[in-house]
Amino acid sequence: MKKILIIGAGAIGGFYGAKLSQSGAEVSLLCRSDYDQVKKQGMEIKSHLGNFNFKPHQVIKDSSEYKDVPDYVLVTTKVLPEINFKKLLDPVIKKNTAIVLIQNGIHIEREFIELFPNQELISILAFVCVSKTDKGKIFHQDYGKLIIGDFPKLYSKKAEYLADLWKKSGIEVELSQDILKDRWKKLIWNAAFNPISVLSRGCNTNEILKNYATKNLVINVMNEVLLLSKLDGVLIEEDVIEKNISMTEKMKPYKTSMLLDFEANRKLEIEAILGNALKFAKEKSITVPYISTLYALLTCY
Amino acid sequence: MKKILIIGAGAIGGFYGAKLSQSGAEVSLLCRSDYDQVKKQGMEIKSHLGNFNFKPHQVIKDSSEYKDVPDYVLVTTKVLPEINFKKLLDPVIKKNTAIVLIQNGIHIEREFIELFPNQELISILAFVCVSKTDKGKIFHQDYGKLIIGDFPKLYSKKAEYLADLWKKSGIEVELSQDILKDRWKKLIWNAAFNPISVLSRGCNTNEILKNYATKNLVINVMNEVLLLSKLDGVLIEEDVIEKNISMTEKMKPYKTSMLLDFEANRKLEIEAILGNALKFAKEKSITVPYISTLYALLTCY
Repeated sequence: MKKILIIGAGAIGGFYGAKLSQSGAEVSLLCRSDYDQVKKQGMEIKSHLGNFNFKPHQVIKDSSEYKDVPDYVLVTTKVLPEINFKKLLDPVIKKNTAIVLIQNGIHIEREFIELFPNQELISILAFVCVSKTDKGKIFHQDYGKLIIGDFPKLYSKKAEYLADLWKKSGIEVELSQDILKDRWKKLIWNAAFNPISVLSRGCNTNEILKNYATKNLVINVMNEVLLLSKLDGVLIEEDVIEKNISMTEKMKPYKTSMLLDFEANRKLEIEAILGNALKFAKEKSITVPYISTLYALLTCY
Repeated sequence: MKKILIIGAGAIGGFYGAKLSQSGAEVSLLCRSDYDQVKKQGMEIKSHLGNFNFKPHQVIKDSSEYKDVPDYVLVTTKVLPEINFKKLLDPVIKKNTAIVLIQNGIHIEREFIELFPNQELISILAFVCVSKTDKGKIFHQDYGKLIIGDFPKLYSKKAEYLADLWKKSGIEVELSQDILKDRWKKLIWNAAFNPISVLSRGCNTNEILKNYATKNLVINVMNEVLLLSKLDGVLIEEDVIEKNISMTEKMKPYKTSMLLDFEANRKLEIEAILGNALKFAKEKSITVPYISTLYALLTCY
């Protein structure tokens, strides 16, 4: 039986961990604020895919308490500069442990490659609407698809095995030959709509696109991301911006996840979404005025 | 005795009108929300230059009620697109009436030139800290200097006369040979700090300059304004940006007027400060990414 340790018992970690456990993997959970609740009662998952009580194999407060040799360590925390991933992962990473990231943003793999250059690194994008409603309680509202690949390219047997576990539990999974490209593609939308929704003091997707000036800003940010992706050796179809805009125009107006975080006074993933893109632009000696303006305004408090 | 009608009984109109009346001009006031109070008791000015009760010659609710032929009509409202200046000024503008603007922003004179192409147009910048504390009550906190010139260049006897009235009442006045240049110079600071203070959700001048990314944004916005001023035929000294930054760094940290307006839920002068600059950039077929991003984010609600 595959041994999996999940680091980050938020909505993403809880939900996707529960699904792996449903398919028979031995899933443990590193859990801090919800420790007592989860230790006692497990995690309660409410989902249209079926409600489920997820009883982790081990519930631990600190990585050093973990008693197994994990096949996979899933990192499902937010991407925040203050999180010390070395400290979190060091005690549990063994020779054959694959590190698996289910997180937002671009170039978030760099830190893990530097810290653990010899580990297999699987990178996952989640397209899901899931939230924690209370300690140990998770509500899966909608969607759920995962895109899985080894970083930066292709995918291994080990990635395939993980994908199969999720598929068995009813999750839609796409194995990707080019996860770096998929990350840039997702960033095109995220880098524009997430920051603009916050900085416009609460506009939803529809309000952003109805205002001529912000719609143009969206397009300008997307063009900068597209340019950066090219410099990163990734070739995305030229009509991607048009498609992103028209898809968003057709969707029901909604608040971005960054706006929801902002309104709930939670930390924002500014570095993963914008900061890393900006860093990469600097490496390539190009200026990205639209991205850098959004970044500046979000980081001044 | 010179006859002056003031349109806009806010802090600026009340304060500078009071000073003209102190020097012996016959100053009337168009006054809406504060009409009853001002009609009965005049305007109470609290100032370190001396407290003063300003009794306007006429207090009127509508321009059509004005019974004189004014030498000057001072426009001291905010610059907001919804204000109908044609309706406000038409009934009172006579052959020799000079229109005098004490307002923020760039190219705000264009509308008045179009509406009243035959009138003398005097343009004034106020460097003052003054606020309305209650109906008919004005508190002059600090500063007060005016820069006065005919638009777009030089100054007339009539402008000089007005300047003298203010000087007599203790106001520092500078007559300008190039008020358009002075407006661009003031915009360099305003276009950067005012929008950034609002969009950063409340940073004061010091916080903006201490954050590396926003300090850079300030410089980038200032460079765009400087470029636009050149295209408008104005030559500003190249070290103006450096000087603006180091002056602001030396000042006590403070909240910009746009931030104060924002926090008090008052309308913002977005068009006068950024919209007109952006319009001018379009006329000249150049892109100003930093200004246009700030503009987009401020206009999306």
